[in-house]
Amino acid sequence: MGKNITKPSILPGFMELLPPDQIVFNKMIDTIRKNYERCGFIPLDTPVIEKSEVLLAKGGGETEKQIYRFEKGSTDLSLRFDLTVPLARYVAQYFSSLTFPFRRYHISKVYRGERNQKGRFREFYQCDIDIIGNGKLSIINDAEIPSVIHSTFKDLGFDTFTIKINNRKVLNGFFDALGVQDKVNTLRVLDKLEKIGKEAVVTELSKLEIDDSAIEKIMMFIQFKGTNSDIINSLRNMNIENDLFNEGLEELDKVVEYTRYFNVPEKNLAIDLTIARGLDYYTGTVYETILDDYPGIGSVCSGGRYDNLAEYYTDQKLPGVGISIGLTRLFYQLREANIIQSNPSATLSEVLVIPMGDYVGEAVEVAGKLRDEEIIAEVYYESTKFGKKLTYANKLGIPYVVIIGEDEVKNNLYTLKNMETGNQDTFALEDLVKHVVSKRK
Amino acid sequence: MGKNITKPSILPGFMELLPPDQIVFNKMIDTIRKNYERCGFIPLDTPVIEKSEVLLAKGGGETEKQIYRFEKGSTDLSLRFDLTVPLARYVAQYFSSLTFPFRRYHISKVYRGERNQKGRFREFYQCDIDIIGNGKLSIINDAEIPSVIHSTFKDLGFDTFTIKINNRKVLNGFFDALGVQDKVNTLRVLDKLEKIGKEAVVTELSKLEIDDSAIEKIMMFIQFKGTNSDIINSLRNMNIENDLFNEGLEELDKVVEYTRYFNVPEKNLAIDLTIARGLDYYTGTVYETILDDYPGIGSVCSGGRYDNLAEYYTDQKLPGVGISIGLTRLFYQLREANIIQSNPSATLSEVLVIPMGDYVGEAVEVAGKLRDEEIIAEVYYESTKFGKKLTYANKLGIPYVVIIGEDEVKNNLYTLKNMETGNQDTFALEDLVKHVVSKRK
Repeated sequence: MGKNITKPSILPGFMELLPPDQIVFNKMIDTIRKNYERCGFIPLDTPVIEKSEVLLAKGGGETEKQIYRFEKGSTDLSLRFDLTVPLARYVAQYFSSLTFPFRRYHISKVYRGERNQKGRFREFYQCDIDIIGNGKLSIINDAEIPSVIHSTFKDLGFDTFTIKINNRKVLNGFFDALGVQDKVNTLRVLDKLEKIGKEAVVTELSKLEIDDSAIEKIMMFIQFKGTNSDIINSLRNMNIENDLFNEGLEELDKVVEYTRYFNVPEKNLAIDLTIARGLDYYTGTVYETILDDYPGIGSVCSGGRYDNLAEYYTDQKLPGVGISIGLTRLFYQLREANIIQSNPSATLSEVLVIPMGDYVGEAVEVAGKLRDEEIIAEVYYESTKFGKKLTYANKLGIPYVVIIGEDEVKNNLYTLKNMETGNQDTFALEDLVKHVVSKRK
Repeated sequence: MGKNITKPSILPGFMELLPPDQIVFNKMIDTIRKNYERCGFIPLDTPVIEKSEVLLAKGGGETEKQIYRFEKGSTDLSLRFDLTVPLARYVAQYFSSLTFPFRRYHISKVYRGERNQKGRFREFYQCDIDIIGNGKLSIINDAEIPSVIHSTFKDLGFDTFTIKINNRKVLNGFFDALGVQDKVNTLRVLDKLEKIGKEAVVTELSKLEIDDSAIEKIMMFIQFKGTNSDIINSLRNMNIENDLFNEGLEELDKVVEYTRYFNVPEKNLAIDLTIARGLDYYTGTVYETILDDYPGIGSVCSGGRYDNLAEYYTDQKLPGVGISIGLTRLFYQLREANIIQSNPSATLSEVLVIPMGDYVGEAVEVAGKLRDEEIIAEVYYESTKFGKKLTYANKLGIPYVVIIGEDEVKNNLYTLKNMETGNQDTFALEDLVKHVVSKRK
């Protein structure tokens, strides 16, 4: 026909998976969803496209440059760049229809036109939970969040991870008490401790016009060691006379105390006085989560407490606390680090039913009966050599094949071939179902 | 603070749900997904944003005007307007890594900047399955599709629906045999039969320069009555000498025959010789699905067989068959028609644990134990009057409340309040778990 062929390809910075990886990815989403739901978080779904004036009400900032923004007709549109701004808009918009504290989860894609770079994505899944209070919100909620992180990452198959916790009031109050002016850069310097070492940190701090006695206290502060209780005690023993500091300290103490009731093991939760999670948003508790064996991946689940979620959309004061898992990036990094093993299956199918000769109808009946028992089954309909049909099962990684021919139909006995071992057994259909179910991994 | 408040709102043509409806909507997605997976369809996910040159490779048509298309940097981007074009691109792009027949499902949002109109959406969910062959694809696949439609709509709670089936080869061959030139307008006229009546149809057909004997045959053809076998027999008895017609007739016969093996009841499957599903895409079997009690909703699940899925991206011949459920529109219409009852719950939570006095820690422990048993549980942490805590459970529609106070902790016996009946019972924790699980609906 001489038709023009367009080379099939996708844009850089977008993740697209082949079936074996897609199946693993979806299982991770299912695991996260199950953990969020078990704790009473309510599912939410918001449009990917919103009015630019609404989505960008806060304005400014690094994010705005990255936004996919365009016009359709005379309307100025933007693709959402996170799930928090849509949540703020949603809660303000439907305020009178919602019941508070409002616990919601949202697992969906967001868009950022970032500079193209390995491991950075322009479309990625965020998996968020937030608890929003009306006017006030108990600090106990801040202790529940680590328990959700803990159960989620356990279920995702991780054992050695640390939920790092801090409180912005402690940091801010401490800096206030010491007379530190440039909090942003002070934190930036402290963040480099592991990279550049203590001496270099001291040098850089002195450049920020912080006096020597304050630097001494800062260096002591960021090096407190021991259990969470030890660190709390060390903070108490500093006798800092600053209300914000002491409020933060009591909050931190309470959060750590209540995580015990939530059965978060001490080994998975560590106060880290250096984490701050950006400076203009969180106001109290902050969280980061590190995979102990892969610290280079950075935080895989972060969040915190904020005083006022929806200030750009309503006069209602709506404090909240929440976290986000950036699943696309996490998946990419786990795969790069070979932590995610390659999935041997390119399908969810458990049984391939292969008809011999004209026994397609009977094969269809058997597949239907397997499906009735919630066994994932498909039939090979194409007419080709028997070997090619087995190859199909092998390539997809379907664990069992049932062969349907004259003898099978006559005797109502079916041959089940285990594709891994090559073993064949003959069963009545009912027993075949039981066998497949019993061998599930 | 004198902060500017932006009125929180979303764009017209976008559906956003409150929690009770969102929960129902998500259950529908879960039901569809489960049915698709049970039949061995593999999950796929593709980017929402693609290169315009790729997405619009086919070019032209009504759809192109509706596309959300924009530039970012110097790149020409478009939002996907269906899941079929991305599937074609995907299959062509990863051809050598896929195993055929390739059975995939995809449940996700697509975008069309349609004229704003009640019941039309600019962002909507499509729930698609397709089976793609390499070079050829057995007609039996066309019989499996109605079985998936059937089980899906049964599980969605529908009983009286009709999967209408036809074959484009029958229509085209019939028109060819009669010498009908303007097939498009002929079909358009036939489609009006119910609205305008037989006489008006005959008048309009004669305006298309179709001769009287042909019109007579057409009128006979579209009025064949009886069972599917009756209609097949009527078609045979017409003795049309046209290869395409007879090929289509044999396919239609075979598809109907095999749906019996798939246990699709005759009452849910009806040959309808007037359905065609657009004229430039489908080449064989076509499907539409009608809710018998709500014909005005139109087709709720449509699709068909196509000869060549990815002709714009590859020279490989890839025939396929598939269907799509437009879930957003379906949900909207079911709700408008009051077929979806309003959901009494604004949450998935089964139990609210209410601590009395200082027993928050113990309440948290109890909630943790419920969650360990896969009971969805949350704790009311805010300090307020007891009545307000019960109101929270009532407003959200949480069926059970557990109250934790001094006596409960001392005796390890917990009071379970049924919020519907008001009854209270006292249980050991283990029995409380069993009770809640046993009363699940």
